[in-house]
Amino acid sequence: MAEKQRIVIVNGPNLNLLGAREPNQYGHESLESINRRLAELAGEIGAECEFLQFNGEGDLVAAIQAAAGADGVILNAGAYTHYSFAIRDAIAAVAAPVVEVHLSNVHSREEFRHTSVLAPVCRGVIAGFGADSYFLALRALVGASGRLI
Amino acid sequence: MAEKQRIVIVNGPNLNLLGAREPNQYGHESLESINRRLAELAGEIGAECEFLQFNGEGDLVAAIQAAAGADGVILNAGAYTHYSFAIRDAIAAVAAPVVEVHLSNVHSREEFRHTSVLAPVCRGVIAGFGADSYFLALRALVGASGRLI
Amino acid sequence: MAEKQRIVIVNGPNLNLLGAREPNQYGHESLESINRRLAELAGEIGAECEFLQFNGEGDLVAAIQAAAGADGVILNAGAYTHYSFAIRDAIAAVAAPVVEVHLSNVHSREEFRHTSVLAPVCRGVIAGFGADSYFLALRALVGASGRLI
Amino acid sequence: MAEKQRIVIVNGPNLNLLGAREPNQYGHESLESINRRLAELAGEIGAECEFLQFNGEGDLVAAIQAAAGADGVILNAGAYTHYSFAIRDAIAAVAAPVVEVHLSNVHSREEFRHTSVLAPVCRGVIAGFGADSYFLALRALVGASGRLI
Amino acid sequence: MAEKQRIVIVNGPNLNLLGAREPNQYGHESLESINRRLAELAGEIGAECEFLQFNGEGDLVAAIQAAAGADGVILNAGAYTHYSFAIRDAIAAVAAPVVEVHLSNVHSREEFRHTSVLAPVCRGVIAGFGADSYFLALRALVGASGRLI
Amino acid sequence: MAEKQRIVIVNGPNLNLLGAREPNQYGHESLESINRRLAELAGEIGAECEFLQFNGEGDLVAAIQAAAGADGVILNAGAYTHYSFAIRDAIAAVAAPVVEVHLSNVHSREEFRHTSVLAPVCRGVIAGFGADSYFLALRALVGASGRLI
Amino acid sequence: MAEKQRIVIVNGPNLNLLGAREPNQYGHESLESINRRLAELAGEIGAECEFLQFNGEGDLVAAIQAAAGADGVILNAGAYTHYSFAIRDAIAAVAAPVVEVHLSNVHSREEFRHTSVLAPVCRGVIAGFGADSYFLALRALVGASGRLI
Amino acid sequence: MAEKQRIVIVNGPNLNLLGAREPNQYGHESLESINRRLAELAGEIGAECEFLQFNGEGDLVAAIQAAAGADGVILNAGAYTHYSFAIRDAIAAVAAPVVEVHLSNVHSREEFRHTSVLAPVCRGVIAGFGADSYFLALRALVGASGRLI
Amino acid sequence: MAEKQRIVIVNGPNLNLLGAREPNQYGHESLESINRRLAELAGEIGAECEFLQFNGEGDLVAAIQAAAGADGVILNAGAYTHYSFAIRDAIAAVAAPVVEVHLSNVHSREEFRHTSVLAPVCRGVIAGFGADSYFLALRALVGASGRLI
Amino acid sequence: MAEKQRIVIVNGPNLNLLGAREPNQYGHESLESINRRLAELAGEIGAECEFLQFNGEGDLVAAIQAAAGADGVILNAGAYTHYSFAIRDAIAAVAAPVVEVHLSNVHSREEFRHTSVLAPVCRGVIAGFGADSYFLALRALVGASGRLI
Amino acid sequence: MAEKQRIVIVNGPNLNLLGAREPNQYGHESLESINRRLAELAGEIGAECEFLQFNGEGDLVAAIQAAAGADGVILNAGAYTHYSFAIRDAIAAVAAPVVEVHLSNVHSREEFRHTSVLAPVCRGVIAGFGADSYFLALRALVGASGRLI
Amino acid sequence: MAEKQRIVIVNGPNLNLLGAREPNQYGHESLESINRRLAELAGEIGAECEFLQFNGEGDLVAAIQAAAGADGVILNAGAYTHYSFAIRDAIAAVAAPVVEVHLSNVHSREEFRHTSVLAPVCRGVIAGFGADSYFLALRALVGASGRLI
Repeated sequence: MAEKQRIVIVNGPNLNLLGAREPNQYGHESLESINRRLAELAGEIGAECEFLQFNGEGDLVAAIQAAAGADGVILNAGAYTHYSFAIRDAIAAVAAPVVEVHLSNVHSREEFRHTSVLAPVCRGVIAGFGADSYFLALRALVGASGRLI
Repeated sequence: MAEKQRIVIVNGPNLNLLGAREPNQYGHESLESINRRLAELAGEIGAECEFLQFNGEGDLVAAIQAAAGADGVILNAGAYTHYSFAIRDAIAAVAAPVVEVHLSNVHSREEFRHTSVLAPVCRGVIAGFGADSYFLALRALVGASGRLI
Repeated sequence: MAEKQRIVIVNGPNLNLLGAREPNQYGHESLESINRRLAELAGEIGAECEFLQFNGEGDLVAAIQAAAGADGVILNAGAYTHYSFAIRDAIAAVAAPVVEVHLSNVHSREEFRHTSVLAPVCRGVIAGFGADSYFLALRALVGASGRLI
Repeated sequence: MAEKQRIVIVNGPNLNLLGAREPNQYGHESLESINRRLAELAGEIGAECEFLQFNGEGDLVAAIQAAAGADGVILNAGAYTHYSFAIRDAIAAVAAPVVEVHLSNVHSREEFRHTSVLAPVCRGVIAGFGADSYFLALRALVGASGRLI
Repeated sequence: MAEKQRIVIVNGPNLNLLGAREPNQYGHESLESINRRLAELAGEIGAECEFLQFNGEGDLVAAIQAAAGADGVILNAGAYTHYSFAIRDAIAAVAAPVVEVHLSNVHSREEFRHTSVLAPVCRGVIAGFGADSYFLALRALVGASGRLI
Repeated sequence: MAEKQRIVIVNGPNLNLLGAREPNQYGHESLESINRRLAELAGEIGAECEFLQFNGEGDLVAAIQAAAGADGVILNAGAYTHYSFAIRDAIAAVAAPVVEVHLSNVHSREEFRHTSVLAPVCRGVIAGFGADSYFLALRALVGASGRLI
Repeated sequence: MAEKQRIVIVNGPNLNLLGAREPNQYGHESLESINRRLAELAGEIGAECEFLQFNGEGDLVAAIQAAAGADGVILNAGAYTHYSFAIRDAIAAVAAPVVEVHLSNVHSREEFRHTSVLAPVCRGVIAGFGADSYFLALRALVGASGRLI
Repeated sequence: MAEKQRIVIVNGPNLNLLGAREPNQYGHESLESINRRLAELAGEIGAECEFLQFNGEGDLVAAIQAAAGADGVILNAGAYTHYSFAIRDAIAAVAAPVVEVHLSNVHSREEFRHTSVLAPVCRGVIAGFGADSYFLALRALVGASGRLI
Repeated sequence: MAEKQRIVIVNGPNLNLLGAREPNQYGHESLESINRRLAELAGEIGAECEFLQFNGEGDLVAAIQAAAGADGVILNAGAYTHYSFAIRDAIAAVAAPVVEVHLSNVHSREEFRHTSVLAPVCRGVIAGFGADSYFLALRALVGASGRLI
Repeated sequence: MAEKQRIVIVNGPNLNLLGAREPNQYGHESLESINRRLAELAGEIGAECEFLQFNGEGDLVAAIQAAAGADGVILNAGAYTHYSFAIRDAIAAVAAPVVEVHLSNVHSREEFRHTSVLAPVCRGVIAGFGADSYFLALRALVGASGRLI
Repeated sequence: MAEKQRIVIVNGPNLNLLGAREPNQYGHESLESINRRLAELAGEIGAECEFLQFNGEGDLVAAIQAAAGADGVILNAGAYTHYSFAIRDAIAAVAAPVVEVHLSNVHSREEFRHTSVLAPVCRGVIAGFGADSYFLALRALVGASGRLI
Repeated sequence: MAEKQRIVIVNGPNLNLLGAREPNQYGHESLESINRRLAELAGEIGAECEFLQFNGEGDLVAAIQAAAGADGVILNAGAYTHYSFAIRDAIAAVAAPVVEVHLSNVHSREEFRHTSVLAPVCRGVIAGFGADSYFLALRALVGASGRLI
C-alpha cells in the first residue's frame, strides 16, 4: 500500500490570531479550525499533515529546516514574507518543495505586501482565497507528487 | 437540478505556442491538451468551461468584458500581466471574479515578471504549478461559488 | 458660408462600458448618450463630430492616423494614456491638434494614473469634469480654431 | 431671479507679468485683459468674478480660505502647483470646488512641471489652451453648478 | 521666586481653520480654544505662552527667529513640515529648543506627510494625539528645562 | 472607585543595555531606573504599568498580542521600528492603543532610522526627549483614556 | 543550387507613415520605397524578403510567431520596442534570429526611447542609420547565416 | 561720462542673521557689514548697489521682478535655492542676468543643499568663498557687462 | 605569561546546515569541522574561541551583547547581514571589535546580498574565501590586538 | 579618381585580449585578425582604415580628437561605453561621424552594460554581431558618406 | 618683499580644444589665450601661475598631487567632474585649496552635468562665466590667502 | 623543491601618498614600508611579490592583464573600485584570482564607497584592517593555492 505523503503546514507571526484579528481582512475562522479541515482533506487524498505556528523568525527557519525530509511544505510566513531573507535561505536549503500561501490578496493591500522575498525560491504561490488558499496548496503539493489533482 | 457554473478560461499572447515554446520553462503539453483536461475536470465538479486565446491586448479586454456574466474567469494574460492597465480596467469593470494564473513561477524569472498590474483587482493569484495552476484556479472558483473544494 | 469644422472623438478601452462600469467613478450616462449630446453642441457651434471607440491599441493608432486631416481630435485613451508610446507617436505624427480628456480626476486615483505619456504631444488636457470634459474639449478645439469660445 | 454665481479667480506667482514674460510660452495678453474678458463671459452666463493675484504662498493660502463660500475657484498657482502642500491643504479645507488651470501645456515642458501636488484635491484640471484655459474653467464651474454648459 | 519660563507656540498654514477644517481629521476644537487651555496648563506648571499663527513661510521663519530667546518653541508647521528648508534653517539658527507637533498621526496619512524636513533640527517630535500633542510638548519643554515632568 | 488603567511598557532589542550603551546617544539612566520612575508616575495618575523587554522580534509580537486587553501600550521597538512588519501586524491586530516612543531624535541620526513601519498603525509617536519620551507617552495614554492630562 | 534565404521584415506602429511623418526625424522615403530597395539588395545577395507592417501589438506577436521558420527577422517595433514584453516573449519563443532596427538614433531622443525591452532577446541591434539600418540588418542576417558579408 | 551700472543684491531667508547664526558655517560678519563693503567695491569699479533681504518666498519673487531693469542681480536665495520653482520662474522672466551665490560650499553639507533649482536659469553660480562669494559675483556681473574684470 | 585572547565566533541562520546546504555555494565542510580547526589555530596563536550558532535574530543580539567583554567577535550573520538593524545596534553597543565574515563572495550573488547593514559598525569585512574567511578573521583580530599577524 | 575615405577604428580597454578573453562571450578571433579583414573590406569599397587600441580613457579621448578630420570613426569603447563622459565630450567635439560598436549583445548581459553614455552623441549603434559589428559599421560609414551600401 | 603666491591651473579632458570645440557652448577663445591672460592678471595681483592640461584621469590625479605645496589650484576637470572619485581623493589628499571652475553653466545643460563629485572636497565652485570663471577663481584664491580681493 | 608562488600587488590612485594622506583615515605607514613587510611575509610563506602602483585607470587595466599568469593578485584599486568597469573587465579576463583589499572600512565612510563594481568578479574582499588587509590577502591567496593558512 502506498505510503502517506507528509505535508508540513507552517504558519508565521500573528496567524495564531486568525478569527479574532481583523476579520474583514482575514475571515472569522480560527487557525485550529482551518487545520482540522486540512487534516480531513489530507486524509481523503492520501496525505497527512503536521501543523506549526511561530511568531519568531528563527523558529520559522528551524521549522523549515526540520521539514527538509517532508513531501512538501505549505508556508504562510505572514509579514516575514516581505523581508525575511533568513527564511528564504532556509527554503533554498531544503529539498522539500515549499508553497507560499496567503489568505488575503496581498496585491490589493499596502505597497509593502506586494513584494515577496520568499517566492523566488518557492515552488509556487497561492494568494487571495481565504482558507481555501491552504486547501489548494495541499492539492498542489500532493498532486505535484504524482497524484491526479 | 443545480445549474452548471460557467467558467471562462482566457489565455493571452504566445500561450497558443504552449508545448512548442521554451518547454523547459513552460512544459511540453499544448494548450489544447490542457483545455481538454480542464473541460473534463469541470464536468466532474459541476461546471463548464469556455476557452479563449488572443495575442492582442484589445481582444483580451473584449473577452473579459464579454465574460462579465460568467461565474468566474481564469486569466493567464501572459506578458500583459506586467503592464496592461487596459486589461486591469476591464477586470475591475466586470462582476465576475477573475483568478490570475501562471504556469511558471514568475517570481524566479526576470525582474519585469515580478510585478503584476492585474493582481490588485483579481480575486487571487496562482502561479508556478505548470498546467496544475489552471486546475487549482478552476477548483478555487467553483469552490468559492459555494461548493466544497 | 463657412465650412463646418470636423472634430473626431476617439475613445479607448472599456469606455464602451460607460454607464454600466463603476458608476461612482464614471457616472451613469452611456457613451452613446454623451456622443449624442456632443453632436448637438457641435451643431450649435458650427462643427460636426465623428465618433470612434476601440479597445485595441493598434486600432487607436490607426484611428488617430486617419484623423490627420481633421480640425481636431478629442481623445480619451483610457488606460493606454499611461503607457502607450505607440499612441503618442501617432499623435505626434498627425497635424490635427489632439486634446486629452478624462471623465474622472485621474490625479486623485491610483498612482499609475498620475502620469500621461500622451500629454506631452497633445495640445492640452482636460480632466475631472465627467461628461463635461468632452464638451469643454469640443469648445476648446472649435474656439481654438478661430471662433470665440 | 436666480442669484449670480460667485467665482473667484486666483493667480499665483509671476502671473502678474503675463504679456511681458516669455511671450512665446505664455502669450502676449496681459492678466488684466484676460480678467476683463472673463468678467464679460461671466456676465453672459450668469456669474460674477473676483480677481486676485499673489506672489506669496501664504497669501494664496489665505485667498483660498477666503473663497470658501464661493461657488467655485479657478486657480493658476503657477510654480507652486508643483510643490505647495500648504496650498493643497487649503484647497482640501474649503467646500468650494477648485479648478486647476495652466496657460501652457505643462506636460511638454520641464520635468518638474509634470507633477501637480494640487490636482488630487481639485475638482479637475485644464491645461494648455492659453487664456482659453480660464474660459473653459469658468464654463466648467458654472455648468457644473447646474447650468447647461 | 523662580522666573516663569517663556514658551512660544507657533502654528502654520491652515491651522487657523481648526475646528472647521476636516474635523474627522483634525477634531472640532478651534485653535483659540486649544490656546486658551494651553495658557491654563502653562500657568499651573510655571510657564507662560505666546501664541502665533501664520500662513506664510517667511512669516514663520521670522517668528522662529523672534523666539530665539524663549525657553522653548512648540511648532506645528502644517504642510511646510514636509518641504520648508527655510524654516529648518531658522530652527537651526536659534538657540531655543523647538518641538515639532502634529494633531493627526501624519504617518497614517498621505505619503508626502511621512517625511519631516524639520525634525532633524528639532529637539523632538510629538504626533497623533490631537490637541494633546501641544499639551505634551509643553510639558516636554518645561520639564526638559529642569522641572519634574 | 475608578479602576486603575493598565499600561504595558514594551521595550525592544538592546534597550536592556540602557545606561551602558552609547550614553551620549541614549543617556546614563538604566532601563530599570526609568521603569521605576514610570511606575511612580503611573501611581500618581491612576494607572499601573507592566514592564517587558525582549531582543527577539517574535517575542515582541507575542508581547503585543498579550497586551491586547490593556488600556494602552508604550512601545520602543528599537531598531525593529524600521523594518518589522511582523510587529506592525501585531499592533494592527490588537485593540489597545499603542504609542511609539524613542529616546533619541531618530530623525537626526542615520537615514535608516527616519522611517518607521510601525507608526502608521500606532496611535501616535513621541521621540527625542530621552526618558521623558516614556513619561509623555504614559500621560498621553492615560489622558487619552479620559483623564485630564 | 543553394536555396534562397528567407528574411521577414516586420515593421510596427506608425511606420506606415514613413516619408510623411516628422521627416526631419525619419527622412522623406516611404516604407514602400525602402522595401523595394531591400528586395533588390536581397536578390543580389541570395535572399528574398517578405514585408509586413502592423500597428497592433497582437498582430506583431502573431507575425513573429509566423516567421518562426524563416532564416531571420528584421524588426522595427516602433514605440513597442520600449514596453512590449508580449513581443519580447514572441521573439524568445521562435528559433529565427531577430535583429532590432531603428531609423533614428533612439539614444539621442526622449528618455523613454533609451530602453529596449526587446534587445535582450534579439541577436543584435542596429540604430541610427536611417533606411540603411534595414540594409545593414539584412547583410548581418544573411552574412551571419554563412555568407561572407 | 559712462553711467554707473545698477546691481541689485537680493538675500533670502535667515541671511538677516549673518554673524549671529552658526558662525562656524557662515562666518562672523553681519550682512550689513558685507553690504557696506560691497557698496565700496561697487564704487571703485563703476557700479552702484541696492540691497534687499526677505524671508518670504513671494517677497523674493517680487524683488527679482522689480530688478528686471537692473544691470545684474546677485541672489543668495538661502534655503529656497533648493526648492523654490516660483523664484526660478521669476529669474527666467526678467532680462537682468542673475548670479547665484552661497557663502558656504553647499556641496559639502547636507544632501538637500546639493541641488539648486535656480541655477539652470541663472547666468552662473559662485559658492564657498564666504563673503567673497558676493564680491566675486559683483566683479563677474560688472565685468560681464563689458568692463575688464 | 600573557593571557589568552578570547574570541567569540557567532554564526547566524542556516549556518548549522553547512556541508549539507547548497555545497556548490557553501562547500562540503560542516560548521563543527570548521570550528574544530578554528580552535586549533587559536591555540597556536595564543587565543581561545567560543562557538555559537543561532537562527533567531534576538538570540544573535543577545550573543553579541554577551560577548561585550571579549577580545573580538567573528560574526557570520547569514541573511541577517542584509537587513538586521537590531544586530547592527548590538554591534555598535559593545566595545569588542567585530569582524563580519562570509564564506561565499556575496557580491557575485543575488542583489540583496550586496548590501550589509552591519559592515558600517564592524571593524572590517572578509568575504569569499570559504572556511578560510573565518581563519583570516581570527588572525585579523588576534593580530589587531597587538600580536604580529 | 575619387579619393579614398579614411576611417579610424578605435578600440578600448581589454579589446587587445580578443580571442583569448572569455571566448564564449567575445569569440576566438584576435583583434589583429579582425583588423586585417577590415582592411581588406575597406580596400574593396574604396576606403582605408587606421587601427588604434588603448586601455586608457585619456588615450581614447586623444585618439578621437586626432580623428577629427577623418571620414568616420568606428569606436568600441569597451567598458568605458557605460560611464566615460570624457569620451562622450570628445565625440561631441569632433566633426567626424562616430559609430558605436559592440561584439556582444550588451543588452543581454549585466545591467551596467545596458546604458551607453556615448550613444547619444554617436551617429548610430551596432551591437551583437561579433566581428561583423565592425564590418557593418564600416559599410554604414562608407555608405553614409555617399556610396551605395 | 612678499613672495609671489603660486597658483596651479589644471585643465582636464577636451579643454585643449577650446575655441574650436562647440564654440556656442564654450566660446571662441583658445586655452592658450585664456592662460596668457591669466598670467597677466596673476602678475598684477602678486601671483604666478603654472598651466597644465591632461586628457587622462590618472594624469590629473598626479597633477593635483604635485600641486600639494602650491597656494591654490584652479581645476576645470571637464567631464571627470561628474564621476571621477579618483580625482576627488587626490583633492582631499592635498593641503592646497582647490577651486572647481566651469566655463559653461553646467546646471542648464544635460542632467549628468548637474552633479559634481569633486565639489564636496573643493574650497568652492565658480561656473557659467566663460573664461571669466578662471579669472574669478584666481582672485578668490589670491584674495582668500589674505589679499584684498 | 616547490616553486615560489608569484603574487602581484597592484595599488591604484593616491595610494602612493600613503602615510602622508589623511593619516587618521589611512594610517602613518608609507606604501613602501607596507610593501617591504609584505615581501618579508611572502618569503616566510613561500611566495614572492611584485609591487605596482598607478594613478591611471588604463595602467591598472594593463597591470592586471600582465598579471594573468601570476598565482594571485592583491588589488587595492582605490577610488576606481567604485566605478571602473574597465578594471572589472580586466579582472574577469584573467585567470589569476584577484583579492580586493581596502585599508579603511569603506562601509563606514561616504555612500559612494559602499559599492564595489570589482567585487563581483574578484575571489573575495578584505577591508578595514589597515595594512593588515594586505597581509590577510596574501595569506588568503597563498593558502587558497593549497598551503595551510
